Amino acid sequence: MGKKIVIIGGVAAGPKAACRVKRLLQDAEVTIIEQDTLFSYGGCGIPYYVSGDVSDEAELRSTSFHIVRDEEFFKQAKGVLVMSGTRAMAINRKEKTVKVQSVASGEEQEVPYDTLMIATGSRPFVLPIPGADLDGVFTISDLHKAIEIKDRIAKGKVDKAVVIGGGAIGLEMAEAFKDLWGVTTTVVEFMPQVLAKIIDKPFASMLTKHMRDNEVEVFLNEGATEIVGEDGKVVGLRTANRTIEADIVIMAAGVRPRSEIAVDAGLQISPMGAIVVNERMQTSDPSIYAAGDCIEVMHLVTGKKFYAPLGSLANKEGRVVGDNMAGIPSTFKGAIGSFIMKAFDVCIGATGLSLDAALAEGYDADAALTAPSDRAHFLPTKSMVCFQMVFDRRTRKVLGVQGFGPMGDGISVRIDAAAAYISMGASIDDFGNLEMAYAPPFSAAIDSINALAYVADNLCDGRLRKVSLESFLAWMEDFESESDWIALDIRHSIEAGPFVEKFGTEKWLAIPYNEVRARYKELPQDKKLIILCDAGTRSFEIQTFLESVDYQNTLVVSGGFNMIRRMGVDWYPG
Amino acid sequence: MGKKIVIIGGVAAGPKAACRVKRLLQDAEVTIIEQDTLFSYGGCGIPYYVSGDVSDEAELRSTSFHIVRDEEFFKQAKGVLVMSGTRAMAINRKEKTVKVQSVASGEEQEVPYDTLMIATGSRPFVLPIPGADLDGVFTISDLHKAIEIKDRIAKGKVDKAVVIGGGAIGLEMAEAFKDLWGVTTTVVEFMPQVLAKIIDKPFASMLTKHMRDNEVEVFLNEGATEIVGEDGKVVGLRTANRTIEADIVIMAAGVRPRSEIAVDAGLQISPMGAIVVNERMQTSDPSIYAAGDCIEVMHLVTGKKFYAPLGSLANKEGRVVGDNMAGIPSTFKGAIGSFIMKAFDVCIGATGLSLDAALAEGYDADAALTAPSDRAHFLPTKSMVCFQMVFDRRTRKVLGVQGFGPMGDGISVRIDAAAAYISMGASIDDFGNLEMAYAPPFSAAIDSINALAYVADNLCDGRLRKVSLESFLAWMEDFESESDWIALDIRHSIEAGPFVEKFGTEKWLAIPYNEVRARYKELPQDKKLIILCDAGTRSFEIQTFLESVDYQNTLVVSGGFNMIRRMGVDWYPG
Repeated sequence: MGKKIVIIGGVAAGPKAACRVKRLLQDAEVTIIEQDTLFSYGGCGIPYYVSGDVSDEAELRSTSFHIVRDEEFFKQAKGVLVMSGTRAMAINRKEKTVKVQSVASGEEQEVPYDTLMIATGSRPFVLPIPGADLDGVFTISDLHKAIEIKDRIAKGKVDKAVVIGGGAIGLEMAEAFKDLWGVTTTVVEFMPQVLAKIIDKPFASMLTKHMRDNEVEVFLNEGATEIVGEDGKVVGLRTANRTIEADIVIMAAGVRPRSEIAVDAGLQISPMGAIVVNERMQTSDPSIYAAGDCIEVMHLVTGKKFYAPLGSLANKEGRVVGDNMAGIPSTFKGAIGSFIMKAFDVCIGATGLSLDAALAEGYDADAALTAPSDRAHFLPTKSMVCFQMVFDRRTRKVLGVQGFGPMGDGISVRIDAAAAYISMGASIDDFGNLEMAYAPPFSAAIDSINALAYVADNLCDGRLRKVSLESFLAWMEDFESESDWIALDIRHSIEAGPFVEKFGTEKWLAIPYNEVRARYKELPQDKKLIILCDAGTRSFEIQTFLESVDYQNTLVVSGGFNMIRRMGVDWYPG
Repeated sequence: MGKKIVIIGGVAAGPKAACRVKRLLQDAEVTIIEQDTLFSYGGCGIPYYVSGDVSDEAELRSTSFHIVRDEEFFKQAKGVLVMSGTRAMAINRKEKTVKVQSVASGEEQEVPYDTLMIATGSRPFVLPIPGADLDGVFTISDLHKAIEIKDRIAKGKVDKAVVIGGGAIGLEMAEAFKDLWGVTTTVVEFMPQVLAKIIDKPFASMLTKHMRDNEVEVFLNEGATEIVGEDGKVVGLRTANRTIEADIVIMAAGVRPRSEIAVDAGLQISPMGAIVVNERMQTSDPSIYAAGDCIEVMHLVTGKKFYAPLGSLANKEGRVVGDNMAGIPSTFKGAIGSFIMKAFDVCIGATGLSLDAALAEGYDADAALTAPSDRAHFLPTKSMVCFQMVFDRRTRKVLGVQGFGPMGDGISVRIDAAAAYISMGASIDDFGNLEMAYAPPFSAAIDSINALAYVADNLCDGRLRKVSLESFLAWMEDFESESDWIALDIRHSIEAGPFVEKFGTEKWLAIPYNEVRARYKELPQDKKLIILCDAGTRSFEIQTFLESVDYQNTLVVSGGFNMIRRMGVDWYPG
């Protein structure tokens, strides 16, 4: 018999490594130790199982050719032994054994290994608030919990749901409750925006508005202070501002690496508790590998380690472990933090650093915005999309891209191309020439990502002088905050007219884009002109023209009304 | 007044450069010389105008905010003078003037320039066959012809259409005729496949089958020898094999650079007739720039110049010209040849080199195939997609990617990410770890492009030994061509059963994937086992297992039945 390979954890990275190494070393004895009885599943599919898009939890544990990945499947098809319902208790690095315990019987045994892998994943963070242990409070951590949640909904026991946490899992669960089951659903988020640290405020605002438009209530800046119960069952959630009725509470406040067994074994651990590995996924003990949600990885933009608990990375890392266990020196160089999410009829995605993250990292960062068509604008199938490019002024390197648009693959197209490009160190100029496959049903002759790079180029070189959406919106709430500002609306007079009427010509001037060259002398010289159009593109053209006729005191509203409308404001005329 | 900038050509690269340079140099005098009266249009939209998806040709000439880009628009909005209906006759480089002639009056004048741009585009290749000048024979070269074609269809004058050329424009025109107007439509292609040189045979076959399934007849290996006329009007098209009735014939046999004015001016020209430019888009005369369909560009994979007449590149090149005319040293480093096309309900795309092209270029090239789900396989919205990765065995560099799948953006997602990555020199290993944004509605945890890289990795390292689809299909036509081969079908017995029944156990064995470890001794030792499944993935697993039990004589059918079914074969049981 060949090498003894033992893998602790049977969800994503573990099974991937197990099957890969077995293919490469057919005579190896490969064993997965898994505490649960349901394993090797697509955890990211849980919201879609709860919603009913996926009818049976077994589908989350099945291959694409419809065989359930149970113990028998791993044995027969893969030649891998799964010890399910078995908890790994401790690693004895000297003896090269793992002490395991049967969850059912409590019986213990020592499992010897030549090479070991730790793929223990993550656990959800449980808020230390009163009522967290009430019946009806769930985390999204395993299939049993998912089955129980869906069972309660299906049995009509859930009328009102509260989700704690406006991250991806929280928002996906909120959609599942609301969209398919019609449950009254509220999301409570402690931070001033949803998807904090992943995307920037304007994009978070567009998403929040869309959730609210679909009748999911979203409270921002509100921490959960107490889960209220009656007779041991949840009946509501309390924040500093209100009490929300609930018969189910989902705690989706993030996850933490499950690394105790590695800590106890004396392996190197990061300050935030993740296992430290090298590019070949080896821990500080070269005969022990680790992968998945229990490790930290290199960020390909910052060059620093970060925590990226994603099933897609776990699988890639798992394959690298499998290779290395078999003597193939594959590497996993790191991740860039790509993100995408469906929410009702829209999609939001990001890759690399947000502007906030880039500034916090010390980059001389700025962000370009645009809101063009996702395909040839003369085709009826086109849609408006919003993109942001975060870049470093000094190096012209692109640090991140964010996108928001209708549900479909149109955002993925640009986010994934950007991820590939950014991970190779692409600059604003590279993005300007990025060759997106073009035919009218798929793209515009100048693809939205090229257009975005053009905005960044003009901004980086100081040709485009902009005002942020946040600053413009603040001024709209209080004109006196910037008393010398005046809006110059260059849209069609049908669009601009109601604004002039509502705000008056002291605050809102309108000259259509194609008349500015002829009529610019109507503009005041003593005001700062805040130029507005739908996307920001025409505004930039007007800014360059006005500069040449000695109107230098102008700012462009990047993203324009296409973004403002989607963010939702209460001063919109009509 | 500032610099005199003259631009010859007003379709894509010309207007882009004109508007860009005007924004950068507001005091410049920018003039476009354009022989046509309809200009600045999206030529790639012509098939969608003919089909009726775009109702009015003016939409192809309009901005995204619905203003027609006519002479008045360029003057008022852009500050650019368009001399339309004016032909550029000759460039006097010494005097720095362009001789122009009014198309209507024949009147000539000299237009002086400080900086000149040639953006004369391409002209369609007109086959030198009898009847090419008959009424009813069209090329797709300008809006007037498009208007005339649509007018004839709309007036019921077109019942039968023949398209000469199975390139992108030919196939898009064929779909326009058939899909929206129900015209009996035939495509005649001289080469043995459609989209020759862009995609490889198996992908071309899938597309051809789909065209035929949608009642577009496609004749391959058939050159048009004569266009038959009666009373000066087209009535048919003759090939070596047949005469096809037609009341309209579209000649879509490729385009050639329109470079005569540059030739006459003594500028450097490539052997195929394209204008030679450097990365800053300067011709051999530094005060003359060129861009668009009249130039050749660097291929970012081969490092050789090639001809890439695409509107998307023309726009990028035009912007670089605008920058350089204004003193900003922007560069256009080249192109990678990205391609995408809609055909009825499918989409086909490619980037980089095809396998044929890579072999012709002298690479030690091979191609990996796979046919997985485009998103989480447990979601009902998933579809099967086919991908190919062409790579160099020696350097492990990825040279190209091709994709085929249902209409939508799912192919674009992978082709565009691949284009970004390949243009930065990515290897098979980079592609294995390419971070595609993951959530179940958008991708699989192992995205199809990662899965494709895994196949390439196994192939490149010799772990996967495959037989090409072409060789397998040839064997299916003549079992005696490889008398020691025998198929091993590892799909579910419901799928494999009819094949065993039809071909007999001397040629077709069936053991389900998850039973091979238990039953492999049933397999013959003296045959070459041709292992078959749906995509090729399971077949590879079985190959590695069989090797460990001394069945070394096996080959995997890459792409599997998912591709075979889509290519269309007549031996399929039932």
